[in-house]
Amino acid sequence: MSRKTKIITSQVMMPNQTNPNGNVHGGDIMKMMDSTAYAAARKYSGTNVVTARVDELEFHLPIMIGDLVICTAKIVYVGSSSMEIFVTVDVDELDNDRDPQRALSAFFTMVALDRNARPTHVPPMVLETPEEQTAFEEGKRRHEMYKERKKQRAQSKSNEVKIVI
Amino acid sequence: MSRKTKIITSQVMMPNQTNPNGNVHGGDIMKMMDSTAYAAARKYSGTNVVTARVDELEFHLPIMIGDLVICTAKIVYVGSSSMEIFVTVDVDELDNDRDPQRALSAFFTMVALDRNARPTHVPPMVLETPEEQTAFEEGKRRHEMYKERKKQRAQSKSNEVKIVI
Amino acid sequence: MSRKTKIITSQVMMPNQTNPNGNVHGGDIMKMMDSTAYAAARKYSGTNVVTARVDELEFHLPIMIGDLVICTAKIVYVGSSSMEIFVTVDVDELDNDRDPQRALSAFFTMVALDRNARPTHVPPMVLETPEEQTAFEEGKRRHEMYKERKKQRAQSKSNEVKIVI
Amino acid sequence: MSRKTKIITSQVMMPNQTNPNGNVHGGDIMKMMDSTAYAAARKYSGTNVVTARVDELEFHLPIMIGDLVICTAKIVYVGSSSMEIFVTVDVDELDNDRDPQRALSAFFTMVALDRNARPTHVPPMVLETPEEQTAFEEGKRRHEMYKERKKQRAQSKSNEVKIVI
Amino acid sequence: MSRKTKIITSQVMMPNQTNPNGNVHGGDIMKMMDSTAYAAARKYSGTNVVTARVDELEFHLPIMIGDLVICTAKIVYVGSSSMEIFVTVDVDELDNDRDPQRALSAFFTMVALDRNARPTHVPPMVLETPEEQTAFEEGKRRHEMYKERKKQRAQSKSNEVKIVI
Amino acid sequence: MSRKTKIITSQVMMPNQTNPNGNVHGGDIMKMMDSTAYAAARKYSGTNVVTARVDELEFHLPIMIGDLVICTAKIVYVGSSSMEIFVTVDVDELDNDRDPQRALSAFFTMVALDRNARPTHVPPMVLETPEEQTAFEEGKRRHEMYKERKKQRAQSKSNEVKIVI
Repeated sequence: MSRKTKIITSQVMMPNQTNPNGNVHGGDIMKMMDSTAYAAARKYSGTNVVTARVDELEFHLPIMIGDLVICTAKIVYVGSSSMEIFVTVDVDELDNDRDPQRALSAFFTMVALDRNARPTHVPPMVLETPEEQTAFEEGKRRHEMYKERKKQRAQSKSNEVKIVI
Repeated sequence: MSRKTKIITSQVMMPNQTNPNGNVHGGDIMKMMDSTAYAAARKYSGTNVVTARVDELEFHLPIMIGDLVICTAKIVYVGSSSMEIFVTVDVDELDNDRDPQRALSAFFTMVALDRNARPTHVPPMVLETPEEQTAFEEGKRRHEMYKERKKQRAQSKSNEVKIVI
Repeated sequence: MSRKTKIITSQVMMPNQTNPNGNVHGGDIMKMMDSTAYAAARKYSGTNVVTARVDELEFHLPIMIGDLVICTAKIVYVGSSSMEIFVTVDVDELDNDRDPQRALSAFFTMVALDRNARPTHVPPMVLETPEEQTAFEEGKRRHEMYKERKKQRAQSKSNEVKIVI
Repeated sequence: MSRKTKIITSQVMMPNQTNPNGNVHGGDIMKMMDSTAYAAARKYSGTNVVTARVDELEFHLPIMIGDLVICTAKIVYVGSSSMEIFVTVDVDELDNDRDPQRALSAFFTMVALDRNARPTHVPPMVLETPEEQTAFEEGKRRHEMYKERKKQRAQSKSNEVKIVI
Repeated sequence: MSRKTKIITSQVMMPNQTNPNGNVHGGDIMKMMDSTAYAAARKYSGTNVVTARVDELEFHLPIMIGDLVICTAKIVYVGSSSMEIFVTVDVDELDNDRDPQRALSAFFTMVALDRNARPTHVPPMVLETPEEQTAFEEGKRRHEMYKERKKQRAQSKSNEVKIVI
Repeated sequence: MSRKTKIITSQVMMPNQTNPNGNVHGGDIMKMMDSTAYAAARKYSGTNVVTARVDELEFHLPIMIGDLVICTAKIVYVGSSSMEIFVTVDVDELDNDRDPQRALSAFFTMVALDRNARPTHVPPMVLETPEEQTAFEEGKRRHEMYKERKKQRAQSKSNEVKIVI
């Protein structure tokens, strides 16, 4: 039997989550996405998990006080100890009849850890539809690209440090 | 067409929500239930709403750090300006395969307000199943009992004050 | 000598406690009531305690930013391992001379737990005035009504679940 | 008739208020003292008020999770637009029968502001007991000492800046 | 004269910022990075700004309670209305003598908005060192890649939606 | 080699930190100062530390939502187990070009504790400039004055209690 690969969390946005200009703080939404990705990875792997990467986090719509925010985390790719999770955020404006709108999406990479905080194996994914198959292959491609880029950055690290400080 | 009568919110429980003994604070769960009832009543009525009563709030299971808590608010009864909402809380322990368990339930009464903070009319409910019909009638019964009890308490108010202070 | 049966807590309401419409969030007030009931039950019993029920929570007045909120928890009934606490909330508007006004009240039932999280005995109450005697008897009546209702609900449980989900 | 000169606030300490070593954060207690002094000054003056100084804030006892903390703010001296408030913090350990113990005290100076955020007059204090008379005179002495010291520091300001940066 | 392009924020990590496993929550760190990027973009542009993207957010080291976390936001690329900011997070373990270690980095894209919440022009960047020149060119490359990818995703959008829901 | 004697923390002020009148809450700033003094004392001493006193905390400028607040803690005097720390708060208004302005300063006294929560020795300070020498001597003078005043207050304690309650 296949394991659970999706978790949904949702909250009504409160005034202490707005930035100094009145919109809901991007950082608060990222925190909610991180916690949903954490839940999905933990439920799937049955182990402790930590966030390793976030990529292509893209804001499409502003989020306002009083909106119901629905955050969906779906596991799309599984490596030996890492999981890639596609996290989406939809907004239901409670004061009208419209359907929820996509406000945000991102790819989170979580790593499974054993009791000694060392990477541990994750069960392989059972792909049930052609769409899941396609998403898995795209995830694998990104996973390899990240590895490649990490290697390149390690080589040019002395440069980077000079730029920042 | 019938209006939306159900809202679900959900969150992973974090360490700053535990009481001094390590379990998630009852008050934090009540806060989540109130905010979900608020969202359901607002979506249904299309107006501002405030909490008027909470009854029969009953804890069945403890809730722990790291649990995914799923809160469902379903409108069961609608009076002229008030809505009764049945709110349930289910717990998904993320570190095992079990289905979510019922941890809590309560009845919330919310009142619709106009721009001057005065009670305003709420659209009548379209009851689609025999179960909705039964729930509506029970809600009506409770609504009338609350009114009755309120009247009685008003009469014996001088007593009550002496007891408390 | 009789044990302490009353605890008072109080706070000035801050902007991060308002709901999306500007009033103080009902959920924040409930959280304060729960924490005051917890303190009273813990002081009285000398053991760990958890919230078991909340009933007849009724809002009489709105609460605003900047108000001083005074929450009083008074033990009114004691069973073998449970305590019923009458919790009131009064509001002192700091920008005028008026006396505090009653904004809210509710009955909380707390259960005393031993170190293994099992219900444990609570010392019997010493009733010192006729008013305490009356309040105790009303508490006992409610306690028995809750038990009765719980039994009834258990029998019709399959119905209830169908309604909600 | 004399104006109200005392406000009491109190809270049960929760886990999100501890410092990294497990005790309640000194900063959280200061925040509670500031908010109680604010309430007392506002109730007394009937105007907006801001914190101008804090002096002789002294910790006598540690405060732990689960303690009930009782904060008392009493106006002791009133100048033309400023009020000196003596703020004390007592701790009631809920798991035993002992009376609350003094954990902390400090002098807060608050300034009354009008709608344009300019200092405004505060009603003179009616001193009703010899103790209030003594406390008022000591407050006046401190008030004059602060003014004197402020003048001295202004003169040696260039020194101070060099030390710090 | 060139405009300020760097902002540093820093905080001691407190217990209410840990995830259910005891480490500081990834989401809390992201929130701090977002708020620092916001400050840098606002100081540079002199306008309101919102987060548009986050990319290549990579965790290198875990962060623990009691650590001093230092977050640096440096503007590296400026388009017509967008700014790319390189955000780094360093950790100073306060209980030893070691220098701070790099724990995290990411690229944030912020967009300048006028009073009607429409994208507005940002002053061009004055590049003063060869390293700034290189970083600017890399930022430009990423900016163009994001645009390209966005176009591609728009075309295959119907696919993506099927995968997620 | 001399030990590190200075720590800087900084944050952008968010809406949940304002008092009921819209300015940033004095109590939130004190909390930030306390946590920065804690970090400096801990880094210097290498032990656990607790706040013992705060003196001459003086507000010069209001702090607003959206400001970047920079808090600097510098150890100025070291006794056998106590450290005096001069804490300053500067405000960088992000929407203009002005340099940060001094908003607040105070003296914090922290005490080093061993594993049994008993005062423990702190390494002596290496004074490197005439300014550090002067600051150290002034710190010593304050330290002795506090001790003297504490002795006097202990003698007149019965008086003080009558005033407050």
